[in-house]
Amino acid sequence: MNTTLPHPDSVALDAALARQAILTKPTGSLGRLEDIACRFAAWQGRTVPAPLSPAIAVFAADHGVCEEGVSAYPSVVTGEMVKNFAAGGAAINVLAKGTGARLEVVDVGVAVDLSQLPIVHAKVRAGSRNLAREAALTRAEVEAALEVGAAAARRAIADGANLLVAGDMGIGNTTPSAALICRLTAYSPDVIVGRGTGVDDATLQLKQQVVGLALNRVAGRQLDGIDTLAELGGLEIAAIAGFYLEGARQRVPSLVDGFIACAAALAGVAIAPGLRDWLLASHRSQENGHGLALTALQLEPLVDLGLRLGEGSGAAACLPLLRLALELHAGMATFAEAGVSDKPA
Amino acid sequence: MNTTLPHPDSVALDAALARQAILTKPTGSLGRLEDIACRFAAWQGRTVPAPLSPAIAVFAADHGVCEEGVSAYPSVVTGEMVKNFAAGGAAINVLAKGTGARLEVVDVGVAVDLSQLPIVHAKVRAGSRNLAREAALTRAEVEAALEVGAAAARRAIADGANLLVAGDMGIGNTTPSAALICRLTAYSPDVIVGRGTGVDDATLQLKQQVVGLALNRVAGRQLDGIDTLAELGGLEIAAIAGFYLEGARQRVPSLVDGFIACAAALAGVAIAPGLRDWLLASHRSQENGHGLALTALQLEPLVDLGLRLGEGSGAAACLPLLRLALELHAGMATFAEAGVSDKPA
Repeated sequence: MNTTLPHPDSVALDAALARQAILTKPTGSLGRLEDIACRFAAWQGRTVPAPLSPAIAVFAADHGVCEEGVSAYPSVVTGEMVKNFAAGGAAINVLAKGTGARLEVVDVGVAVDLSQLPIVHAKVRAGSRNLAREAALTRAEVEAALEVGAAAARRAIADGANLLVAGDMGIGNTTPSAALICRLTAYSPDVIVGRGTGVDDATLQLKQQVVGLALNRVAGRQLDGIDTLAELGGLEIAAIAGFYLEGARQRVPSLVDGFIACAAALAGVAIAPGLRDWLLASHRSQENGHGLALTALQLEPLVDLGLRLGEGSGAAACLPLLRLALELHAGMATFAEAGVSDKPA
Repeated sequence: MNTTLPHPDSVALDAALARQAILTKPTGSLGRLEDIACRFAAWQGRTVPAPLSPAIAVFAADHGVCEEGVSAYPSVVTGEMVKNFAAGGAAINVLAKGTGARLEVVDVGVAVDLSQLPIVHAKVRAGSRNLAREAALTRAEVEAALEVGAAAARRAIADGANLLVAGDMGIGNTTPSAALICRLTAYSPDVIVGRGTGVDDATLQLKQQVVGLALNRVAGRQLDGIDTLAELGGLEIAAIAGFYLEGARQRVPSLVDGFIACAAALAGVAIAPGLRDWLLASHRSQENGHGLALTALQLEPLVDLGLRLGEGSGAAACLPLLRLALELHAGMATFAEAGVSDKPA
C-alpha cells in the first residue's frame, strides 16, 4: 500500500489568509469559520475554494465481541438499522437530505443477509471475531475492508465530492473503537470506554474488562496499523480508515464524526501519518474518551451538542457550518469593494 | 406597555419528548438537537413543529460614547457598513442567503443620513448621547426604539417567520452593552468589558474606565428596564429588546446572537421577565463577559466558534442546526414504523 500522502497547498493557504484580512469585518472576527475556509483553500489549492460538495458513506458491520454482552442493543439491530437507512428513516437520511449531501450505505460486514436491499454490497465477512478472545480479523480481511472504504471514496469523488464524511453502524462497535483508541494512544480503558448507546453501570464495568482483556492479549507485541485493526478493530472501522486514506490520496479532506470515526482516523494515521493533514473534526460526542481521542489526533471539535448516535450524524450536522464558512470567504465584499474604512493602522 | 408574556405550551413539550423517545436512535443520543426540537414544540404548541422559517433584522445606530475613544474603528463605519448591507456584501448578507432567512436592515439611529438606501428608515435620533457623561437616551427615545424593534418583529411574523434573529451594527456598541450587562447582572467592568472589534490594551483599559464612569453616574438609583436602557443603552440595543419582546408576545422565539444581543435580552428581561422563556442561545462569542451574560440569562450557547463580529452573524450561523433539529424530529422513523428492535427494558 502506498502510504505517502500529498500535502495541503501552503501557497493557497497564505493567499486565503490574505483574502480574509481584507473582507469587510474586523480581522479574525469570524473565528473558526475563517480557519475552515483557509484550510479548504489549502486542500483545494485555490484561494477561493469551490462550494462545499459533501458525500456521506455509512459503513455497517457486526462485532463478535457482542457475545460478551457489551451493548445495550442486540446485534440484530445492525441489520434492522441498515434496512432503516435503505428506507430513508434514520437520522443520517434526514441529515443527508437536509444538508444536500450524497449518501451511500455500504454493508462491509453485517451478520445477516442484506442482499435484497438497495445498498452497496461489499461484505468482507459476516461480522468480526470476538476481539476479547482472538484477533477480530485477519490482515487480509482488514486489507479487503480498507479497499471497500477506498472504493466508496473513489465513487464519491468521481461524483464530485470535495469533502468526505464516514458514518458507522455496528451494534457493539464502541468496544473495538475503545480498544483501538487505547492501543493507539496509550490511554487506559477507564478513561476511554464509555456507555455507547447507553449501557448501565454493570455493563460499563464489563465493557472496560473486555477492552482490558483485548489489550492484554496483544500487549508486548509490535503491531503496525493494519495489525492493530486486525487484532482490535472491526470491518466498518477498517473501511472508514480506508475511506479517509483514499480521500487524502486524492487531496479530498474528511470531516471526522464521533468515537468510532476517531478510532478509524487513529488507525489511518498509524498506517499513513500524513492523513492527519486531511482531517477536520466535527463534534465532540458524549462518549467517554472522544475528547482525548480528538486531542491525540490534534483535532479540535467545532461543536459539542451532546450527540452520541454514530451514523456520521455529528459530522453531518456540522456540514452547514462548513458550507457557510466557504460562502462567507467567497461572497463577502472587501473593504475596497464596499467603500468601508478599514481599522486605522 | 403590556409586560405579561404568554408561556410555552407544556402539553406540546411532553408530547414532543415522548415522540423523541420512539424515534430510531438511542434515547437522548441526539443531545441538544432533541432539546431544540422539543422547545420549538412548546413554542409552537404542536408535537411536531413546523419547519424553521427564520427572519433576521439588523438594527443600526451610532453611539455618543465613541467620543471617548473606545472603539478601534471610527463612527463613520456604522453608516458605511449599512451601505454594505444594502449592497449585499457583508457577512450577514451571505449568512442570510445561505440559511434561507428573511433579512431586513433598520436604521434606528445612525448618525449620518442614509435616506437614499433601500432599508427600513426608523431613525429615532442620529446616535445616542455619551453615556459616560449623561443619559444616552430619554425614556421617550427608548420607547420609540422599542417600538421600532416591535414593528420589525411584526413584519417578520406577518411574513411567516417562526424564529427571530436580531443583529446589530453600531461602532462603539460593546461599550453600552458592557455597561448594561454590568448594571443588570452586578458583574464588574473588569470581567465584562472586552476588546470589541479589537482594541489594544490601552483602549481596553480606557473602555473599562468609561463603563465604570457610566455605572457610577447611575449608582444608587432605582432604574427599571426602560430607565436602564435610557441611561446606559443605545438605540439598536433598545430596538433589539423590543424585537424580542414583540416576538414573545406573539409566541415566536428569538435566537440570541452575541454580546450586544445579550445586553438587549437582559434589558428585555428587566422589562418583562417572562421573555426568558422565549429565548434560545446561539453562540458564545470571543467577547469578554459574553459567557457570563448568557449564564445570567440562564442560556447555554449551542456553539463556540470564536466569533466576535456582531450583525447577528453567530445566530445566523446556528440556523442550520435548528433547521436540522426540526427536520430530524419530524422526519425520522419510529422503532415501530421501521421494524427496528428497541433497547430491551
